[in-house]
Amino acid sequence: MTPSDATSSEPRDAAPNPAASAAVIAALARAAESRERHLAELFEFLRIPSVSALPRHAADVRAAAEFVAAQMTAIGLDGVRLVRGGEGAGHPLVYGEWLRAPGAPTLLCYGHYDVQPADPFEEWLSPPFSPALRDGRVYARGAADDKGQIFAHLKALEAWLRGGGLPLNARVLIEGEEETGGAAIAAYVRERAADLACDAVLISDTTLFAPGLPTLAVGLRGLLYAEIHARGAQSDLHSGLFGGVAPNPLHALAAALTALKGADGRVALPGFYDAVRPPAPAELAAWRRLPFDEEEFRRDQVRASALPGEPGRGALERVWARPTFEVHGIVGGFTGTGAKTVIPAHASAKVSFRLVPDQRPEEVFAALERRVRELAPPGVTLSAELLSTAAPIVVDPQNHFVRAAERALAAEYGRAPVLVRSGGSIPIVDLFASALRAPAVMMGFATPDCGAHAPNESFPLVNFHHAVDAVIRFFAAAASR
Amino acid sequence: MTPSDATSSEPRDAAPNPAASAAVIAALARAAESRERHLAELFEFLRIPSVSALPRHAADVRAAAEFVAAQMTAIGLDGVRLVRGGEGAGHPLVYGEWLRAPGAPTLLCYGHYDVQPADPFEEWLSPPFSPALRDGRVYARGAADDKGQIFAHLKALEAWLRGGGLPLNARVLIEGEEETGGAAIAAYVRERAADLACDAVLISDTTLFAPGLPTLAVGLRGLLYAEIHARGAQSDLHSGLFGGVAPNPLHALAAALTALKGADGRVALPGFYDAVRPPAPAELAAWRRLPFDEEEFRRDQVRASALPGEPGRGALERVWARPTFEVHGIVGGFTGTGAKTVIPAHASAKVSFRLVPDQRPEEVFAALERRVRELAPPGVTLSAELLSTAAPIVVDPQNHFVRAAERALAAEYGRAPVLVRSGGSIPIVDLFASALRAPAVMMGFATPDCGAHAPNESFPLVNFHHAVDAVIRFFAAAASR
Repeated sequence: MTPSDATSSEPRDAAPNPAASAAVIAALARAAESRERHLAELFEFLRIPSVSALPRHAADVRAAAEFVAAQMTAIGLDGVRLVRGGEGAGHPLVYGEWLRAPGAPTLLCYGHYDVQPADPFEEWLSPPFSPALRDGRVYARGAADDKGQIFAHLKALEAWLRGGGLPLNARVLIEGEEETGGAAIAAYVRERAADLACDAVLISDTTLFAPGLPTLAVGLRGLLYAEIHARGAQSDLHSGLFGGVAPNPLHALAAALTALKGADGRVALPGFYDAVRPPAPAELAAWRRLPFDEEEFRRDQVRASALPGEPGRGALERVWARPTFEVHGIVGGFTGTGAKTVIPAHASAKVSFRLVPDQRPEEVFAALERRVRELAPPGVTLSAELLSTAAPIVVDPQNHFVRAAERALAAEYGRAPVLVRSGGSIPIVDLFASALRAPAVMMGFATPDCGAHAPNESFPLVNFHHAVDAVIRFFAAAASR
Repeated sequence: MTPSDATSSEPRDAAPNPAASAAVIAALARAAESRERHLAELFEFLRIPSVSALPRHAADVRAAAEFVAAQMTAIGLDGVRLVRGGEGAGHPLVYGEWLRAPGAPTLLCYGHYDVQPADPFEEWLSPPFSPALRDGRVYARGAADDKGQIFAHLKALEAWLRGGGLPLNARVLIEGEEETGGAAIAAYVRERAADLACDAVLISDTTLFAPGLPTLAVGLRGLLYAEIHARGAQSDLHSGLFGGVAPNPLHALAAALTALKGADGRVALPGFYDAVRPPAPAELAAWRRLPFDEEEFRRDQVRASALPGEPGRGALERVWARPTFEVHGIVGGFTGTGAKTVIPAHASAKVSFRLVPDQRPEEVFAALERRVRELAPPGVTLSAELLSTAAPIVVDPQNHFVRAAERALAAEYGRAPVLVRSGGSIPIVDLFASALRAPAVMMGFATPDCGAHAPNESFPLVNFHHAVDAVIRFFAAAASR
């Protein structure tokens, strides 16, 4: 089949969809012919227990990197290599490129080959590193997060390259530390931004909003993680001998945490909401059209007796477009079994803010620092320590690459994709935006019930095929200005 | 020397002090003759590492019990035996008696032969179980708490028994689990109260208010130890994906703890202060005459930048005669190194109230239970679990045995003792009061700087001698109605 033969297969859109061009149809056909081999190769990939968090799996993580590099070479990428990240970085990055489309845009395909630990093992119906196909789903650790999804990128690249070449330039950068903080890639992107020059980044590490509903994520909340320290007396004191005169850092922390967040869920930091940019009315309206039932969400996903939070705003708006303050743990004093009557000298609270555009983590931290100092009661000093940040992200839905992804998904699924946000944070997306000036196209194919990070992680096989095909289409659409 | 020879040695009091009678002087002389042997025996006792908390020292704890029993037999007590406590109890009680003074009152001498763990070992100037005499102090784990003090009881008994007999009836009950909760003795006292019938209990496990200042403790705060549980969603949630809709049990706990105690240190439970009986004006006035400097106390003992607490009340009053609420630790969520963005499903707080006469632990717990339920925000349930209680204690200073102890201390030290309270709680004192109807005479000889529970625990040798002699005198004074 030559490209021109395929025109009749295009959907009857007003304008021809480049995501359904003759060349695309040819590439799709090549992918379709190879599905059995793709699945066999994916199983091989999934058999490698590349658990980045566990030192005993270091050789396996390395083996997974080498598997990815071998795949890149086999499909025809140039300059394939393992890259050590910056100082102190552990697991290698795998890089490959195909830059033979002068004048066309350059796309960076990003993903990760490492996986979460698989315990508790006894809850798996089939072993986590012995992939199994049951009821149309691939069961294995990493099936959805993220081996299955990056493998779809590689197979989409393969389908084009076996036809003679890509319609655009591509770099592929796959990391091995996403589940443990991503230090290597962060250092590499910061130090070698010029080597990664691109116009957009394609990331498939998110989920469909609902099964069969093509989805693009166009926003992520940011994160400010901090520890609030409370210091009282110079050493722990006995509450019998000193209760009534000794400052109690745990009480001071409790009062500060309470003062920082109102009963209505609003964060009580001066100026905190000043920079919050509300979603456009059209975006809010689109969210209201999503297949979402707040009561079902409460019962099946949150599994709590109520959904507290800012009054007058829906659950999706609160999770996607409103900032939060949460305490994650309190350190200090006696937390063993039974009773011990200690007034601790020191205690601290692990806290985080989720941030939304256009809040800046450093400004929020400065306000936090000031406020906790003010909140210190007599005999206690309170201070805040910054642990990590990620800026909030919104991608302009009018961006060419987002529009291209919409066209690719529309062609693939026969229905327009929904544009959603995520309440979570992906720090590397912020780094790509700031260091590479490249917007992220977050086109994920996992399902909400895929069990990433849990036992019996799975990825529907049909989603894997859709992912290969949608990325094939996306390359064409992104190339077509 | 016969009793009648000694009359001229009595202090020139208005009334003859039975604590300085001829028989007393004779007993004192017998004790004085034996001081070297007493010290050698005490060292032998201190060499036994009877650490009740550490299973590897179980045989040592047993050896210490046997040492005490052998001492009791050697000094002439009757019915000496090791007693297993109630079910589940570990280390034995040691019991002995001398009940050959018909018509005279019966005294129960209580103490403990077990000691705190000695770590950190490297901070000891001489090994904790190799007693050393330096600068007039005996250094060893247990020197003050409580081996040195119970050994003084035994040597005072010996001094009388070698003279023919005691002026009153005595039971001696020494436990081996005081440092680990005292389960055995509590069960034994409850079950065998008739076997322990007595008129008063002598306890030497407290300190002098200041060096050389004879001291009687006539009050103890009570204790209510509880755990407040907060339950939110059915499982831990990710703060990115659910922050803004998920209930946070740690925030609910922080808010409840803050609501339960005002910034002024006052406990915010309905009716909490209703039963509080203020100290008599005379007692408060006596406290004001004590050698006590609040600024020194802050700097040297509390070692904090301020002494927070209820305004308008001095530090001693706050610690001795005012109830408190303290949080000791908060369990749940993420408390490791670094950052994890979990909203825990469950969290709990270890808390306690110190109580003063006439507050009742069970009433306070009922008020706590009601209040925490009310304080639960949407999506969270709060509940309170009772862990342990001890009723507050005040001993009537006009009680015959307290007056006898005052006379004994006055004769021994040549100055009137001070009557103080302690902010701590000694649950067994409450049990003696309720099960035996016996008031406690808390006549301790340790010093505030003796380092009980710390490295380099010590007991001034002169205090040991004063303790032997004061107890010798006390027996006579207590016998003299």
